[in-house]
Amino acid sequence: MAVIDRFFEGDRRALAKIISHIENRAESYRQVLARLYPKTGRTYKLGFTGPPGAGKSSLVDSVADVYLKAGEKVGIVAVDPSSPFTGGALLGDRIRMAHLSNQENAFIRSMATRGSGGGLAISTKDVCIALDAFGFDKNLIETVGVGQVELDIVNAADTVVVVLVPESGDTIQAMKAGLMEIADIFCVNKSDREGSDRLAAELVMMLDVKRHDSDWEYPVVQTSATKNTGIDILIEKIQAHRDYLKSSGKFEERRRRQVKTEIYRHLEERMLEEVHNRIGDLKLEEIIDEISSGASDPFTKATEIFEKYFR
Amino acid sequence: MAVIDRFFEGDRRALAKIISHIENRAESYRQVLARLYPKTGRTYKLGFTGPPGAGKSSLVDSVADVYLKAGEKVGIVAVDPSSPFTGGALLGDRIRMAHLSNQENAFIRSMATRGSGGGLAISTKDVCIALDAFGFDKNLIETVGVGQVELDIVNAADTVVVVLVPESGDTIQAMKAGLMEIADIFCVNKSDREGSDRLAAELVMMLDVKRHDSDWEYPVVQTSATKNTGIDILIEKIQAHRDYLKSSGKFEERRRRQVKTEIYRHLEERMLEEVHNRIGDLKLEEIIDEISSGASDPFTKATEIFEKYFR
Repeated sequence: MAVIDRFFEGDRRALAKIISHIENRAESYRQVLARLYPKTGRTYKLGFTGPPGAGKSSLVDSVADVYLKAGEKVGIVAVDPSSPFTGGALLGDRIRMAHLSNQENAFIRSMATRGSGGGLAISTKDVCIALDAFGFDKNLIETVGVGQVELDIVNAADTVVVVLVPESGDTIQAMKAGLMEIADIFCVNKSDREGSDRLAAELVMMLDVKRHDSDWEYPVVQTSATKNTGIDILIEKIQAHRDYLKSSGKFEERRRRQVKTEIYRHLEERMLEEVHNRIGDLKLEEIIDEISSGASDPFTKATEIFEKYFR
Repeated sequence: MAVIDRFFEGDRRALAKIISHIENRAESYRQVLARLYPKTGRTYKLGFTGPPGAGKSSLVDSVADVYLKAGEKVGIVAVDPSSPFTGGALLGDRIRMAHLSNQENAFIRSMATRGSGGGLAISTKDVCIALDAFGFDKNLIETVGVGQVELDIVNAADTVVVVLVPESGDTIQAMKAGLMEIADIFCVNKSDREGSDRLAAELVMMLDVKRHDSDWEYPVVQTSATKNTGIDILIEKIQAHRDYLKSSGKFEERRRRQVKTEIYRHLEERMLEEVHNRIGDLKLEEIIDEISSGASDPFTKATEIFEKYFR
């Protein structure tokens, strides 16, 4: 396959092609992934998440700029659920992509939701594998939203930065959204706005408990992506977390957990494919008729299908 | 099983027990679900979702109060990711539950995230099945957050209300969060605050496109749950949507889609269980070692496991 050879020679157009290939689950994409995988492991993965409107995109761009200026290769994956109204990436992302794409060492990919629950998380991780195999130094993964699938995506990162803003409401909302659980670093963005100091202080207080259970002193950094303040401190803390992971053996642990997740998710995908192939749409409609008429139920039917095809 | 008989006699403590049983995936929970299922289908399911801080809980309580006053039985399922700091439901929910639990015809269940992606969606749907079988007229399902799993949960509802607030930022953020796609009714809550009219007007404008593709005229309702304004109009619009679904045949369609999802999710769960049972933790660690050493990759290994156990 010529395109994969060009990929390994560092051809960016080949990278884009490979990513589309994987994303679309095109023919033999698993073989492609299997060829890429042995080249992975070198890229440091940074996850950025937080509530909508927290300014994650600007922050990610600022962080990327610092790495780029230091001569590093930076890949950005922005998970950005598309709307039926726009049919794709939103205007802001197009502008942003135009800016970053002009830089030789930067690559940005916007991932749109396809309506299915697990699908997004799966293809996002595969795209990260491609970026890793291509040889990026840093992979910044940005997810809008605070949902479970989105958390799963950033959880596959080595360091997770949770981005909050003063007006994102009281900290209890952040707790509710499950963000505290996955954060390695907290970032109060738009810190020039009122309430920034208060939010930072609240976070520091709340983190007291979490700090007791860990050797890692969860930092709270105040940034303003648009005014470019605090970014250097954020970069320092990211580096400190990386050092902590490596020296404590937790880096190895996280990577092993990532491998485990990889195995399971591909297994799951294979099995669901198999179900679709074996049952077929017509047969499924019959089963739904049977259940709708009250003659059976989904649990009994699922068990029947399972016993028939997978035992 | 005595508890299930008491359940069918309308014993609320039996309901709580059955729900815990299902939620914990306790022994033979599938048989329990299979016994409940034939009694389901009568409850009208209302999903409420939107960004954190939109006041969904208060709104759901206000809507529930109206139905309760009309003599209906109302079940509420609040999906509320718990934090490691609190270890369970937050204080606000306890207060709320105390208030509603005193009402004979009301039942509220707070569901906490258990860290796994699909698990929450699965057990939430099962709890809704129990409520349906128990004979509630309305089931209000409330999810905090805007993630894909959360959207999947409310998508299983008959009518989906998306709740926004003036300060939840520009509407583009709502679009980004994928909320537009699943909404049947839009609700601008906290409408006494500045910017409410503007947000409502923006939504109406944006909905123009969506309205062209559908017979349903997506309403935008302004409410204030705390001041109890607009709730009656919201209730009217919910009724109108229900009438629309029933008269257009779309109700049947949605319910069939729900059954299909049910079959798949239980099948998926069965298959993953089977994988865990057959591979075992020790064997999995060996596989991870092999991959970590570079001797294999997750895709090849997933295929091997699949071929060995499921073909």
